[in-house]
Amino acid sequence: MLAAVCHGKKDLRIEELEDRALAPDEVRVSVAYGGICGSDMHYYHRGAVGDFAIREPMTLGHEISGRIAELGSDVTGLTVGSKAALDPSKPCLTCEHCKEGRSNLCSNMYFLGSAGRFPHVQGGFAQHLVLRRDQVIPVPEDTDLLRLSVAEPLSVGLHAVKRAGNLLGRKVIVTGSGPIGLLTAQSALHAGAKEVVCTDIEDAALAVAKDRIGAHGVVNVAKDPDGLKAYAGYFDVALEASGSEAALNSLFDVVKRGGRIVQLGMLPPGKASIPVNVLQSREIDLVGSFRAHDEFRLAVEMIVSGTMDVTPILSGTYPLNEANTAFELAGDRSKVVKLHLAISE
Amino acid sequence: MLAAVCHGKKDLRIEELEDRALAPDEVRVSVAYGGICGSDMHYYHRGAVGDFAIREPMTLGHEISGRIAELGSDVTGLTVGSKAALDPSKPCLTCEHCKEGRSNLCSNMYFLGSAGRFPHVQGGFAQHLVLRRDQVIPVPEDTDLLRLSVAEPLSVGLHAVKRAGNLLGRKVIVTGSGPIGLLTAQSALHAGAKEVVCTDIEDAALAVAKDRIGAHGVVNVAKDPDGLKAYAGYFDVALEASGSEAALNSLFDVVKRGGRIVQLGMLPPGKASIPVNVLQSREIDLVGSFRAHDEFRLAVEMIVSGTMDVTPILSGTYPLNEANTAFELAGDRSKVVKLHLAISE
Amino acid sequence: MLAAVCHGKKDLRIEELEDRALAPDEVRVSVAYGGICGSDMHYYHRGAVGDFAIREPMTLGHEISGRIAELGSDVTGLTVGSKAALDPSKPCLTCEHCKEGRSNLCSNMYFLGSAGRFPHVQGGFAQHLVLRRDQVIPVPEDTDLLRLSVAEPLSVGLHAVKRAGNLLGRKVIVTGSGPIGLLTAQSALHAGAKEVVCTDIEDAALAVAKDRIGAHGVVNVAKDPDGLKAYAGYFDVALEASGSEAALNSLFDVVKRGGRIVQLGMLPPGKASIPVNVLQSREIDLVGSFRAHDEFRLAVEMIVSGTMDVTPILSGTYPLNEANTAFELAGDRSKVVKLHLAISE
Amino acid sequence: MLAAVCHGKKDLRIEELEDRALAPDEVRVSVAYGGICGSDMHYYHRGAVGDFAIREPMTLGHEISGRIAELGSDVTGLTVGSKAALDPSKPCLTCEHCKEGRSNLCSNMYFLGSAGRFPHVQGGFAQHLVLRRDQVIPVPEDTDLLRLSVAEPLSVGLHAVKRAGNLLGRKVIVTGSGPIGLLTAQSALHAGAKEVVCTDIEDAALAVAKDRIGAHGVVNVAKDPDGLKAYAGYFDVALEASGSEAALNSLFDVVKRGGRIVQLGMLPPGKASIPVNVLQSREIDLVGSFRAHDEFRLAVEMIVSGTMDVTPILSGTYPLNEANTAFELAGDRSKVVKLHLAISE
Repeated sequence: MLAAVCHGKKDLRIEELEDRALAPDEVRVSVAYGGICGSDMHYYHRGAVGDFAIREPMTLGHEISGRIAELGSDVTGLTVGSKAALDPSKPCLTCEHCKEGRSNLCSNMYFLGSAGRFPHVQGGFAQHLVLRRDQVIPVPEDTDLLRLSVAEPLSVGLHAVKRAGNLLGRKVIVTGSGPIGLLTAQSALHAGAKEVVCTDIEDAALAVAKDRIGAHGVVNVAKDPDGLKAYAGYFDVALEASGSEAALNSLFDVVKRGGRIVQLGMLPPGKASIPVNVLQSREIDLVGSFRAHDEFRLAVEMIVSGTMDVTPILSGTYPLNEANTAFELAGDRSKVVKLHLAISE
Repeated sequence: MLAAVCHGKKDLRIEELEDRALAPDEVRVSVAYGGICGSDMHYYHRGAVGDFAIREPMTLGHEISGRIAELGSDVTGLTVGSKAALDPSKPCLTCEHCKEGRSNLCSNMYFLGSAGRFPHVQGGFAQHLVLRRDQVIPVPEDTDLLRLSVAEPLSVGLHAVKRAGNLLGRKVIVTGSGPIGLLTAQSALHAGAKEVVCTDIEDAALAVAKDRIGAHGVVNVAKDPDGLKAYAGYFDVALEASGSEAALNSLFDVVKRGGRIVQLGMLPPGKASIPVNVLQSREIDLVGSFRAHDEFRLAVEMIVSGTMDVTPILSGTYPLNEANTAFELAGDRSKVVKLHLAISE
Repeated sequence: MLAAVCHGKKDLRIEELEDRALAPDEVRVSVAYGGICGSDMHYYHRGAVGDFAIREPMTLGHEISGRIAELGSDVTGLTVGSKAALDPSKPCLTCEHCKEGRSNLCSNMYFLGSAGRFPHVQGGFAQHLVLRRDQVIPVPEDTDLLRLSVAEPLSVGLHAVKRAGNLLGRKVIVTGSGPIGLLTAQSALHAGAKEVVCTDIEDAALAVAKDRIGAHGVVNVAKDPDGLKAYAGYFDVALEASGSEAALNSLFDVVKRGGRIVQLGMLPPGKASIPVNVLQSREIDLVGSFRAHDEFRLAVEMIVSGTMDVTPILSGTYPLNEANTAFELAGDRSKVVKLHLAISE
Repeated sequence: MLAAVCHGKKDLRIEELEDRALAPDEVRVSVAYGGICGSDMHYYHRGAVGDFAIREPMTLGHEISGRIAELGSDVTGLTVGSKAALDPSKPCLTCEHCKEGRSNLCSNMYFLGSAGRFPHVQGGFAQHLVLRRDQVIPVPEDTDLLRLSVAEPLSVGLHAVKRAGNLLGRKVIVTGSGPIGLLTAQSALHAGAKEVVCTDIEDAALAVAKDRIGAHGVVNVAKDPDGLKAYAGYFDVALEASGSEAALNSLFDVVKRGGRIVQLGMLPPGKASIPVNVLQSREIDLVGSFRAHDEFRLAVEMIVSGTMDVTPILSGTYPLNEANTAFELAGDRSKVVKLHLAISE
């Protein structure tokens, strides 16, 4: 079977790999679509994400959907041939964090396509993939598998919104309108936020936020550096999805006393300078948000039921053997929100 | 009546001031004791606290206790001559924050001895003081008024502990063992923390933490810079009471994933550099804690009932007319935790 | 000025009353519309609500909107002639509950048209009404005052939803599809509930739930007593809006372990029999919800912005002098959701 | 090996049972002590607990401690011969409730000595017992194994206190001063409750609460039916540990508006009549508390460190072959708090 394997910086190869045998509680799936994520692009362009460098060939990809191909001997409740959502997280279920209901913080996580541990966890841009049974969620046959592959990034947005607390009637700002920022803004609107304002430095992204997502306001902070001045002390909640130190700093002016900033964008390694004295004297909460937990299942349900329209972030699909082209184009934010690889379908 | 009035940097004068008339809902008290706080010392040594500079003569002091001297025409439920705890906070009760139950964040707060607004709010190092009725809490006649004056700093520690969430069975680190840090550590122990470790750069302070407060461990981070290495990913909760950027940074190594850092120490104006990427990927909460809310009343009850022994932080008392001497000595952390002024008793 | 004054059971009179003088912080309003609430109908039909009997003539009504007519000497920020939402709650702001941010539980509440204290608090079915300044929320001139009068019952639904916790992605049942139940179901949908099922014993009410509100499912528990059997252990959250002991009991079968039941419907005085052993062993939360707090302001904003369409509960309007007719018709649930009195407009 | 096997009502036999083979992730322990719990006594006296009747011979017991006797092939981190705390709960780790961090509500729980499923889960009043690796928590050799066997009931008290929310500075009532009530009162005091009042109908139990546990007040509600009248609207939190409908009802008079009642005592099957209308209009929370979750580990640590003194509930120990005598004596509350069986030590 074929896979898109990263051997290091700018070295992505479509290679033939061997299938491996199934353990009793595992399932083999054939992957239909794979969304190209910011972390995939970091591996491609830099050979690393944050401090995690590629030290052996690694198949990329963790935003995937597919069909069930083979069942381990103990697996029940699944049908070969069925469409399925595929959860890239395999937590240990037994560590302190798993037992507290925060398995996204698992001390012994296997997350698809990640060099965070060695040997690396091979990813999902591959025709076949082996998952633990609980990573495979069957869906109805009329589910669109391309949309379904958005469940993972949507789950990240939903998780950030859960970390923000109850948003019913709240005023919310989302900094960064890439795929995650947009899905986060949609999630905030869905959670009953009274007003959602999105920022970015690219007009094309903000047009999606405004016209497709329904943001109440948008600000291009590159073209209009004073665009947030009108919002001094205005927002109850901020969702920082850009990973930009400047964006994070801007939030301390626009979030009200007692407000909450959720940092879900990944900043570069090292430190960031922020006004901690303001955080202290205004009792602002700054809380991290990392991947997702049971929000993956919710994201699947929302996509299957049509409750959440994820088409605004779909910008095009390339066959697996054109993965290099797709990776080169995926970063042009003036034209692209998110690109996908069509793998088995 | 006499008061300790700050006219600017190193210019503290004992002056004769006029009593003012009472509004119907006000109470005149005679102040018995006043504790010298870090912010009082900043006004004394720099003529400012953070960005708030003294722009007109201002009586210092907000950690006070006393006796009821005169009642406004509408005041009921109080007796002239009774001992009383004196709350330095006078929130508006009607702003958004007050109505949400977070009056310490009041948009229109009058806090004793603060240059945060102009005209400044005159403080409590004065023989007489006028307060709103709800700032005056009567206490039994056998209450020790010196100890009672510790209610305000104790309330700050209790508030930080409330901001930390339920501490029952939690492992807690407190950075900074000045008066606030010590009272915070005591509050954490009282709240059922399983283990409390205190840090400082002064052995005398740590000796109080260890021998008087009952901290399970102490670390002098000046003498033993690697002293926290044994605690990697160990603590559930950190209470940062030093206002030191270095101390705050050290906490990201010793707090576990999903843990919580409460910043109650006041940092200098400007920014502090912290590893926000770690906060994000480990879902750490960094939350501010500012003064106190209904914890003032709790602090009074704890002191009156003897539940909380505040004597470990009492280092000596000077008469009001020796205020300058007291202010000079108050900063010697090798000998002093907190000094008090004896004003009317 | 004219008012609808209840003198006891079935004794509602349109009477001429005197205007009273304004205190400095008060505002006189002319009332435009008043919605007839279940409690108004209890006063009309029984001369009492629960244990609170009418002991002196009392103007009914608390779901009102109007225009500002006159300002007390200290009032700023309001304009005579402006349209305004009118909050029926006047909490004391200083009791323990107000200071904790739960002013709906105020120990010294004045709530319009309530015999809960004596002298009774006169209500809003009157051409003129005097309110404290913070009860008056100005709205734009293009606001529909009939819809605006729904802010109070909507606030009750929003408050119940807040008491339910974060509903994003949750499965919710609402028992009772009267005006409050319907507005609660709408609020739950708005808060991101994944599925909302409504029950009632009247098909007309369920038709509104299904066709106007967008409930995912409806069950007529009178006609189909087994209609909830398909939902065993299914719902995360239940909102009990009927005040029926039978409805409350049915919820212990359909709420999952660890789930939450919010009781907002008012039960008759006395006790109700419920399976407390099930509540204990499944760790179900049963929590009360009473009136509303800052949700009134949110309800106003939602109506003004059109975010929440309250027209499904509007069933007709009668002039003030036909109040007796309106009260007689208001209880026919086969035809009516809620009737209004047109008072000054 | 010998075990105390219940064959039905009043039919408890000391029998020789076979050891079974270990699975790779299992551990054989030799049980040192076993505490006799209320549910054990229900099985003994009625042949059933609630709706769960004994349908096959079942070894009783779930409050146990012991030593590690044999390790399954995959088990690491444990040493044969070591003392260990033994957690009676074996949750599935994969159901919805386990993943939410509420494994005490597990849909597929195996709990020692319980007829709640069939075949029954055999209990711990046996010389040997096989547990999953994560049920075995090694403790230092100097740990008192009799005290350690109290970890399970202590965990029930700690869990109830966690369900009560943050108790720092709160006024608390505990109804029922049996072993669970007493350990709950201790837990509440440890969590920083300002005042703890205990009730019972037996003076001996209240003497333990007052003299050994340190309750601030005690009320014998049998001898002094009006004893709670002085506490109208007084308590922030109530912990109902008696399983008595009358006790539960008394709490609605003494808990303040917005207060919280935790029902941890098990009521008889069927319904209980309570004033739900009061719950609604005062926004009281009534929440269930069932067994424990990670509080078991905390209970072990507290007993090992001596933080929690469990000796007030120890009333005597009988050898395994005198189990029938122990069960007969265990119910005499005028003399006994809790009796233990000495099994292998």
